[in-house]
Amino acid sequence: MGKSEGEPLVVIVGGGFGGLSAAHALRRAKVRVHLIDRTNHHVFQPLLYQVATGQLSPADIAKPIRSVLRDQKNVTVSMSLVREIDKDKREVVTTSRRIKYDYLIVAGGARHSYFGKDEWEPFAPGLKSLDDALEIRRRVLTAFEQAEKYDDEPRRKSAMTFVIVGAGPTGVETAGAIAELAHNTLKSEFRRIDADHTRVLLVEAGPRVLPSYTEGLSESAKKQLEELGVEVRLRTRVTGVGDRFVELDGERLDAHTVIWAAGNVASPLAKELGETDRSGRLLVEPDLTVPGHREIQAIGDMVAIDDTHKNPVPGVAPAAMQMGRHAAKNIRRQLEGKAPEPFRYLDKGNLATIGRNAGIADIKGLRFGGYFAWLAWALIHLFFLVGFRYRAIVFLEWAWAYMFYTRAVRLISDIPPRASDIVAEQRDPARVELHAPEREAH
Amino acid sequence: MGKSEGEPLVVIVGGGFGGLSAAHALRRAKVRVHLIDRTNHHVFQPLLYQVATGQLSPADIAKPIRSVLRDQKNVTVSMSLVREIDKDKREVVTTSRRIKYDYLIVAGGARHSYFGKDEWEPFAPGLKSLDDALEIRRRVLTAFEQAEKYDDEPRRKSAMTFVIVGAGPTGVETAGAIAELAHNTLKSEFRRIDADHTRVLLVEAGPRVLPSYTEGLSESAKKQLEELGVEVRLRTRVTGVGDRFVELDGERLDAHTVIWAAGNVASPLAKELGETDRSGRLLVEPDLTVPGHREIQAIGDMVAIDDTHKNPVPGVAPAAMQMGRHAAKNIRRQLEGKAPEPFRYLDKGNLATIGRNAGIADIKGLRFGGYFAWLAWALIHLFFLVGFRYRAIVFLEWAWAYMFYTRAVRLISDIPPRASDIVAEQRDPARVELHAPEREAH
Repeated sequence: MGKSEGEPLVVIVGGGFGGLSAAHALRRAKVRVHLIDRTNHHVFQPLLYQVATGQLSPADIAKPIRSVLRDQKNVTVSMSLVREIDKDKREVVTTSRRIKYDYLIVAGGARHSYFGKDEWEPFAPGLKSLDDALEIRRRVLTAFEQAEKYDDEPRRKSAMTFVIVGAGPTGVETAGAIAELAHNTLKSEFRRIDADHTRVLLVEAGPRVLPSYTEGLSESAKKQLEELGVEVRLRTRVTGVGDRFVELDGERLDAHTVIWAAGNVASPLAKELGETDRSGRLLVEPDLTVPGHREIQAIGDMVAIDDTHKNPVPGVAPAAMQMGRHAAKNIRRQLEGKAPEPFRYLDKGNLATIGRNAGIADIKGLRFGGYFAWLAWALIHLFFLVGFRYRAIVFLEWAWAYMFYTRAVRLISDIPPRASDIVAEQRDPARVELHAPEREAH
Repeated sequence: MGKSEGEPLVVIVGGGFGGLSAAHALRRAKVRVHLIDRTNHHVFQPLLYQVATGQLSPADIAKPIRSVLRDQKNVTVSMSLVREIDKDKREVVTTSRRIKYDYLIVAGGARHSYFGKDEWEPFAPGLKSLDDALEIRRRVLTAFEQAEKYDDEPRRKSAMTFVIVGAGPTGVETAGAIAELAHNTLKSEFRRIDADHTRVLLVEAGPRVLPSYTEGLSESAKKQLEELGVEVRLRTRVTGVGDRFVELDGERLDAHTVIWAAGNVASPLAKELGETDRSGRLLVEPDLTVPGHREIQAIGDMVAIDDTHKNPVPGVAPAAMQMGRHAAKNIRRQLEGKAPEPFRYLDKGNLATIGRNAGIADIKGLRFGGYFAWLAWALIHLFFLVGFRYRAIVFLEWAWAYMFYTRAVRLISDIPPRASDIVAEQRDPARVELHAPEREAH
């Protein structure tokens, strides 16, 4: 590492929007940076649902962290799992070694939360990582393949029923994308089932969809979802999830595919660092430092912090990026002997997409829905994709899908199914019993 | 299925080049077609090695079979595993049902063969399916990530040693691609290891690489491989493969990554149908029918058949496609009361690529190596990719990679590792022991 050997070491845990922004913002600082992530790639999370529904390839929205930071010579990247943070010794403990830091930025993100019902997870996967997206894609596509093979109507119906739990942005986007997949793309590809009979249910415990928007926009989003063929069930609680069924307010509904988009819980690293809130998010100081430890900052979805209006800063990519840059700035200040500054969140507006030509927007009080919201969403997401190559290809994929209603990335991978699936398959008599010979031929 | 209910049913097993060509060629025949494949996609196999080495995404070279055949209304597609063929009852038995056929085309393809040493497979995966390619990609990329973390030189060396067994086209292409990945793409992305120190060994039991070409072209290919930094070991036998090592003529070589490209064995369906050769390939009549069963034809890599010069027809995509079209023609003839005709293989030439600007070509006696062979290879492969969308995107990826030496699709997925890997990880002390604190910081 040559001449910079003596410079202070900043360890960054997590290569998401927050961690990567922090690393970038330290490019001219007189520090060495060591970024640790459990995967080798940065994911553009807002488009994960498009991978889960076969519109984009994983590589369209993910890039090796090493490659993103290749020209920033003061950064070392490793792919490791952080097991522990030793605040007293100032060491990060990974599965393979201990790394001593001078400054630490923890950007561990969040996972989906089952509100204490973790036994639901195998039956209702969430959507946070590329692997989650590939698993959901496998389930969604396999359900249609199974429906085409079934002979009895109830089972076919169950295979063609998709339940999405939670009507935040991920839930809304996923529900809209599955409805479009069924009603447009798959329509003419099956011979025995009519993909138009697909049921997509979006279930929400609260009184409206996209609750972080105004009531008017929520209403607009609900209408647009219904136009795409999504059944929106508000004020409905999920009381059980199991092998190919879900219980809504105690009533059982058969559905091969259940997707969980109902809640988040912060990375377990939050608890290592200090006091947390109900969602496991770390309570940090207004300057993002961990109480009692000025050398440690935590950023992104894993922290609970208020904006200047005393509203909680939302768990979105722009907030994480702003925090990442702020944490870097605080370190530069400390190197100059100055105190860290409080973080201020700048809300640039919110956009959600629902489907083709459908979305809602709230940009500094300017609120609109429908085609222009969708267009704004598409342009802004294209613009923010890391690196040009992806932008060009994603643009091609989108343009193509827009014109021809195609979904190009509909590959079912033979990834070994989770243990629970194997059990589920065995319980499903269609998979193991041989039916009486069908007279397909004569 | 409407008005065509009474038409004879042709069942096609396998959606590779052979099966798909047969289905296409039956588009105007008065038959119903039922194509069965264990996956939902057709793969452009000649480019699999580019997925395995991170240059292309799975969706660039694979397409849902349903989508390829969507407009051919006489075809039904199902994703099922064929367990048995009952020749007497004329039924194909899948895991979920029995399907009665009037005509049957079996295009089951081939898998890699370990020549009776199946216990080597977990340590030396082969490259036949998309899943194989993703598994090899995971291993290759993970090896570099591990090398960057190791502190002791022998282990680092082992992680940076890649052994490819077998110098047919797949072995040569894979070896060239890994050498390029290491020496060009990864070069400036690591801080602790020098990717230039990567060793890529191509091991071949026979006396030359690409033995299906002339001696002059084999010699040219070997030189081009060596220019890319591949060590070519001819007349060398693999005598053992195990957890992170390979034995070459009895001598142990530590290598995290071993890739098997040494031999093929036909689909087990061949044995269901009749007599087979040493490689498990079905011995069919000259007209592709199964002895004693004119209603059954077998095509592609799973059959052994000679061309008009008494040379065996090679296991390549053009041969499989020609057989698929021929089988369809034979069925049309039988429907008209005519006898099936013998199959004649038309050899249009052979091309192999080795790396950037490197390849060899043998087109009807015109033999050349180097840049123009590579260019011919690239143009022909682009042209034959199924469907324009892929062609456009693959062209973009290739152009980009050519100009900037990038490999865009370098994603390590968290696919649960095979059992053998878990064992290997546990045996690897670097993964479980904590080292003494490294003084990275001060």
